[in-house]
Amino acid sequence: MGSFCPKLCMLCSASFPPQTIQAMARKSCNNSEFNNTMKYEVSQRTKVNRNAHMENLRDHAYLFPEICAKETEHAKKYPHEKLIRLGIGDTTEPIPQVIGSAMAKYAQDLSTTEGYSGYGPEQGNQRLREAIAETIYKDMGIRGSEVFVSDGAQSDIARLQMLFGSNVTVAVQDPSFPAYVDTSVIMGQGGKFLEESGKHEKIVYMKCNSGNNNDFFPADLAAMPRTDIIFFCSPNNPTGHAASFPQLQQLVDFARHNGSIIVYDSAYAAYISDIQTVPTSIFQIPGAKQVAIEVSSFSKLAGFTGVRLGWTVVPEELLYSNGLPLIKDFNRIVTTCFNGASAIAQAGGLACLSSTGYQSLRSIIKHYMENAEILADTLTSLKLNVHGGKNAPYLWVHFPNSKSWDIFDHILSKAHILTVPGIGFGLGGEEYVRFSAFASREHVLEACARLRNCF
Amino acid sequence: MGSFCPKLCMLCSASFPPQTIQAMARKSCNNSEFNNTMKYEVSQRTKVNRNAHMENLRDHAYLFPEICAKETEHAKKYPHEKLIRLGIGDTTEPIPQVIGSAMAKYAQDLSTTEGYSGYGPEQGNQRLREAIAETIYKDMGIRGSEVFVSDGAQSDIARLQMLFGSNVTVAVQDPSFPAYVDTSVIMGQGGKFLEESGKHEKIVYMKCNSGNNNDFFPADLAAMPRTDIIFFCSPNNPTGHAASFPQLQQLVDFARHNGSIIVYDSAYAAYISDIQTVPTSIFQIPGAKQVAIEVSSFSKLAGFTGVRLGWTVVPEELLYSNGLPLIKDFNRIVTTCFNGASAIAQAGGLACLSSTGYQSLRSIIKHYMENAEILADTLTSLKLNVHGGKNAPYLWVHFPNSKSWDIFDHILSKAHILTVPGIGFGLGGEEYVRFSAFASREHVLEACARLRNCF
Repeated sequence: MGSFCPKLCMLCSASFPPQTIQAMARKSCNNSEFNNTMKYEVSQRTKVNRNAHMENLRDHAYLFPEICAKETEHAKKYPHEKLIRLGIGDTTEPIPQVIGSAMAKYAQDLSTTEGYSGYGPEQGNQRLREAIAETIYKDMGIRGSEVFVSDGAQSDIARLQMLFGSNVTVAVQDPSFPAYVDTSVIMGQGGKFLEESGKHEKIVYMKCNSGNNNDFFPADLAAMPRTDIIFFCSPNNPTGHAASFPQLQQLVDFARHNGSIIVYDSAYAAYISDIQTVPTSIFQIPGAKQVAIEVSSFSKLAGFTGVRLGWTVVPEELLYSNGLPLIKDFNRIVTTCFNGASAIAQAGGLACLSSTGYQSLRSIIKHYMENAEILADTLTSLKLNVHGGKNAPYLWVHFPNSKSWDIFDHILSKAHILTVPGIGFGLGGEEYVRFSAFASREHVLEACARLRNCF
Repeated sequence: MGSFCPKLCMLCSASFPPQTIQAMARKSCNNSEFNNTMKYEVSQRTKVNRNAHMENLRDHAYLFPEICAKETEHAKKYPHEKLIRLGIGDTTEPIPQVIGSAMAKYAQDLSTTEGYSGYGPEQGNQRLREAIAETIYKDMGIRGSEVFVSDGAQSDIARLQMLFGSNVTVAVQDPSFPAYVDTSVIMGQGGKFLEESGKHEKIVYMKCNSGNNNDFFPADLAAMPRTDIIFFCSPNNPTGHAASFPQLQQLVDFARHNGSIIVYDSAYAAYISDIQTVPTSIFQIPGAKQVAIEVSSFSKLAGFTGVRLGWTVVPEELLYSNGLPLIKDFNRIVTTCFNGASAIAQAGGLACLSSTGYQSLRSIIKHYMENAEILADTLTSLKLNVHGGKNAPYLWVHFPNSKSWDIFDHILSKAHILTVPGIGFGLGGEEYVRFSAFASREHVLEACARLRNCF
């Protein structure tokens, strides 16, 4: 009976051999009553107005898609040149066997009666929440119940913005990862983009440059206006700077003084080598639990950029002005707007935090940090002003009085190396270019050779 | 050097044997300067006001967590009774071997140089986008570029709400899946919850009951006030009703007349058996592309409730009042607020849409629909008023003049069967209880036996 319907391949009982299914699927619906779409003008507009906040987003494409476009253009222009990607910070090294196997086993077991399971808790597998609390936050007094497993930091930043709503005021580091500003604008916290200043009217930009020994920490916190939310990323993307214990103590004290909430992005914490002087979590700072949320990720820790797994810590001590714990609302957001991270990815996360898993991750991180050192040595030998690369997989290279897109284009066309122009991270990134250490050793060495001929 | 730091297990180079790492990890930080948290009062509030929209959420917990609480309570009270879960619609049957193996292989290959890959496009793997367009939307003229792969329908509903913003007006079916109303309230579209009416002041509720042969389709569309957005789920969760071609044509014509956008949830489309009379996609309806977005999922199609994979179709023809295509803004939301579904899950999605994969999924769907038939026959034989179960895996059973929580409690305590009380889906669900067909045959038969002694 259904044999006339184009959707039969999707909806018939399973009694047809594949080729029959395919054949039937190719037939078009002969139900004439519903076949004539032509009676409708195709360009009818709805009466739904565009969300005004979307109009405030900077009209150029999101940074990384824009770089991809440049890459495509370059490939057309130089079809025979081998491009080296030190741009978008995407991990390149295979996942350790023990972790890949854990995910493979979980996936395979989904095909067995004993191994199959469906919905997990939206907040994440309890064992993984505990494991994150016990390893990443060892001795910081973070409970598993305060850890929310996610599909990645970027998604959780958006969920936090839904939680905060449109009426909060926001501060970001300048330069900073674009998602903080863009999600603030989408929610209506950012206001118009002012071309003359290169800033959104309602966002407070904390200048993080290398002048006056500021070392990329906000120059004068005390002079900053109070905001409800402070987005802070350390080790920082893009500058590669990692804030010290005293610097983060300043930040926490500033937030406590103003009654602000710090959204602390620690996605690169595993790259910190100066562990005596640089905190790996905001929760190593006394008093942080009453003013901070920490967003983090397995992406750079474990090469999970494609696997998608992260977490957010919301301490029970963090209270709204009315005394209500923010964790209650975040839990509601997670259970309403999200349905949990992939159980396969979560099985991988557990393997990452096992002793063996973690050991193998350390050696991959070591590899990337050696890349950073090699790149830094080369760029420094070229008399370039190189920052970062010690506690983060990014080098932040200063080209005084140059436009960062010009430097990006120069390096792309002369050395066929993809970087990221600093301006893509905000006005404070102008004159800078970011080099990523996420690459094979072979590519890094080749890149260094090319850079020597480029500058 | 780092051997005093509690985070050493996370941050040292990989030169320590696991047991040493564990031992060191157990040590607490002896950096006294940052060890004394006691100097801070622990109950300090921030000055950040709670998002007023969150206050408008109904103060009881989200439906499903609430049912879980009842379940726990029941387990304590009846420790020796074996509970049968026909409540939360969670899939129970193992994933077909061919699909589990495809995901296992992808995960295992992530541990090889050839098989490793990182970030994918935020919109999803191009092959999967094409495969969804070509199989699910066969002959409906949907392009792969209009398909956005997601981690599930619930997440995409939240992302669509971020896109729409706070100023749109919204209509929902009553009863309906709670996420539509709750995300509307979180975004500020819903307004206060009025206890007396059991409704949010700014949401339009389309009554979908069984009176006057309405068959759970909105009684009188023409009499409904215009809204910007119309959330519509068919086959419907919870009523199990699947709208016919003429009914959906009415809905599309109504939206076109009002210039509204339909957000069509087709998560249960694969369960439609009356394929001659019931559309499996809103895009089978002429004129739908200018007024509809379709949100869908692999969860119920492929038992991916824990794997997390879905998609949303935004036709290029769908325009705002200013003529701008909505797809441009949705693309920006997806690239800013999301970072793609797990690549492992996407590999599984591709396997689902292969002929072999799809054939095996059909037989699992057949199993669930036979469960629905068995349950329907039993409940009908008990002179109960049973709806749904023909084109959806849910039975919607009417208990006139009863409170749905009372019926839920009665069935739980007498038959030790978990259902869902209709009121959890809105006022229109009062007097109803939802039975899910997602279960093993053994459990369904046992449940039927118990129900015979219960009514």
